[in-house]
Amino acid sequence: MTPVHVRMVGTGLIGTSLGIALSRKGFHVTLSDPSPTAERLARDLEAGEIATPHDPAPDLVVVAAPPDVAAAAVLEALATWDHAVVTDVASVKGAVLREVDAGGGDLTRYVGSHPMAGRERSGAGAARADLFEGRAWVVVPTEVSRSQAVEVVRQVAAAAGSVVTVMVAADHDAAVAVVSHLPQVAASLVAARLRDVPEPAVALAGQGLRDVTRIAASDPRLWTQILAGNAAAVREVLISMRADLDDVITALDGLADGDGRGALEVVHRTVGNGNVGYARIPGKHGAAPTAYATVVVVVPDTPGALGQLLTDMGAAGVNLEDLHLEHGLGQPFGLAEVSVVPASVERLLGALAERGWRVHD
Amino acid sequence: MTPVHVRMVGTGLIGTSLGIALSRKGFHVTLSDPSPTAERLARDLEAGEIATPHDPAPDLVVVAAPPDVAAAAVLEALATWDHAVVTDVASVKGAVLREVDAGGGDLTRYVGSHPMAGRERSGAGAARADLFEGRAWVVVPTEVSRSQAVEVVRQVAAAAGSVVTVMVAADHDAAVAVVSHLPQVAASLVAARLRDVPEPAVALAGQGLRDVTRIAASDPRLWTQILAGNAAAVREVLISMRADLDDVITALDGLADGDGRGALEVVHRTVGNGNVGYARIPGKHGAAPTAYATVVVVVPDTPGALGQLLTDMGAAGVNLEDLHLEHGLGQPFGLAEVSVVPASVERLLGALAERGWRVHD
Repeated sequence: MTPVHVRMVGTGLIGTSLGIALSRKGFHVTLSDPSPTAERLARDLEAGEIATPHDPAPDLVVVAAPPDVAAAAVLEALATWDHAVVTDVASVKGAVLREVDAGGGDLTRYVGSHPMAGRERSGAGAARADLFEGRAWVVVPTEVSRSQAVEVVRQVAAAAGSVVTVMVAADHDAAVAVVSHLPQVAASLVAARLRDVPEPAVALAGQGLRDVTRIAASDPRLWTQILAGNAAAVREVLISMRADLDDVITALDGLADGDGRGALEVVHRTVGNGNVGYARIPGKHGAAPTAYATVVVVVPDTPGALGQLLTDMGAAGVNLEDLHLEHGLGQPFGLAEVSVVPASVERLLGALAERGWRVHD
Repeated sequence: MTPVHVRMVGTGLIGTSLGIALSRKGFHVTLSDPSPTAERLARDLEAGEIATPHDPAPDLVVVAAPPDVAAAAVLEALATWDHAVVTDVASVKGAVLREVDAGGGDLTRYVGSHPMAGRERSGAGAARADLFEGRAWVVVPTEVSRSQAVEVVRQVAAAAGSVVTVMVAADHDAAVAVVSHLPQVAASLVAARLRDVPEPAVALAGQGLRDVTRIAASDPRLWTQILAGNAAAVREVLISMRADLDDVITALDGLADGDGRGALEVVHRTVGNGNVGYARIPGKHGAAPTAYATVVVVVPDTPGALGQLLTDMGAAGVNLEDLHLEHGLGQPFGLAEVSVVPASVERLLGALAERGWRVHD
């Protein structure tokens, strides 16, 4: 039941990367794209062969077209090949499903996909074979998808190196609204406040602000498509956030102008609820959240210094779980926050002290 | 005009760390704290000598007491020593200033401070001499502070290794409301949404969510004091954010239920405004923002692998400006996003390829 012949409809970043990955695994991949140049570039990158009218029917069609034309391309593929399984890779699933259903597509052969991979650059030229390696790939069956069709999509996702999760469209869209779309909106809203503050105020920016706003640098065109495509689910999450925000503003009103009765409890609860939610984010490798221990090391700002630190950690047999760099202001060194499993702390501290590092546990 | 004798009122994390740093620079530091144990611990950590009634009058008194008792301690210090300069280290300045003024304190000798340093742990036991090194220290004169008093506080901040900025209280409080307090509230509100989502949804969390919510793990007690102490300024920023949030929700309403006219423009503008604000955050060393080039390297998840990468970078003479780790889901490797100045990219790519690293520019 493994698909042998995969037709890639669309040879942008995702289609080309997937074509390369699958070709390397022995799949026969044929490529089509409205742009002949994009097709040829993908072929040259060894994503597969350019499709011809004489090709046999594919076992699986992957629609890797832009989100706003995905449903139309799925409908066309279902109509063209009456035995092929068809999937698409749009990052929002409910809208595509509704449009395919409304268009009379055969939902027994349609299974949605959301490979959670991407990069800042787009187009075939940015493609890479390992784009999907280690990333989540959500497989989204319809209510009537044949189990064999689901299995075909699963196998292709696994062949690309992804970790497969199966969800229905509504669950998928609600999930990404919270874990992906909400953080984007929040980061953008926080960063937007920096537009009008005076220079000396911005100069006080620390690591917290940098972390919260990093994704605020994202592409507005892409995110307009994504947020619009998941409007209902994102709205629900934003309304829930606004209710909490209103509570905080009311509490601060009370503290600034009134007697502030009850206000401290609201503020305390807000930060406390954040603690609880944060603790649910899975750790490395999708494992249950682990409370890593953090050790702060002073690192000279010279080439190789951080490398030496991590080499010394490796020599001590201590695995790095996470790393944050804090840049000093106008100082020739930085602070490295090194996260390790708690059981390694003692060994790490000993090894680093021995090698002359300035450490704070 | 350099102060010779500094009285430290409060020997918690900040007071003890500052005492150690100043003692090492040759200042004579005397210590007092309501807790005799905390005093003795600070003395044992070489933060200074325990104060006695026979000590000569200090040149500078640093009130390093909890924020809610800072003003009272400043008033007491101004009354006790009628020639000493007095400062405090509370992270919100307007509230302390108003209370000192209302209490009839001599504002010519009072100068506020906000050393922007801290750590997760508190108390003298967590103290470290380099807590202030490379950190911003905002010096906050009153309208009538003597210039000599301002200079004394400046000198102590510089001696502790900080980068000194001078601001009036209102500007300081407005600045930290945007660059510090707003990101905390936003991170907490986003993380709070994760409390009730199903496990498979949380499992889709990626690096964006992790970055946005990292500071949501902060201490609710501490942040209740900070946010309450700057209620008016924080409220103003939150109200401005809520106005933008309302616009996004209205736009999504239109897209989900209505004809969505104008909605895409609102969403696009929201993300675009975030781009503009983000670009204002200063780069490393307080320099103007630099557009670093990012190179993605595949790193095996074994002890020492990341260290080897950074050692190889160092050997190639390329300085690391920033580093993000992306953890694969269930994969024995991760992706390291390495930021360097654009001029170094070519050299870096060559050196890494030569040493067998899998690199994506």
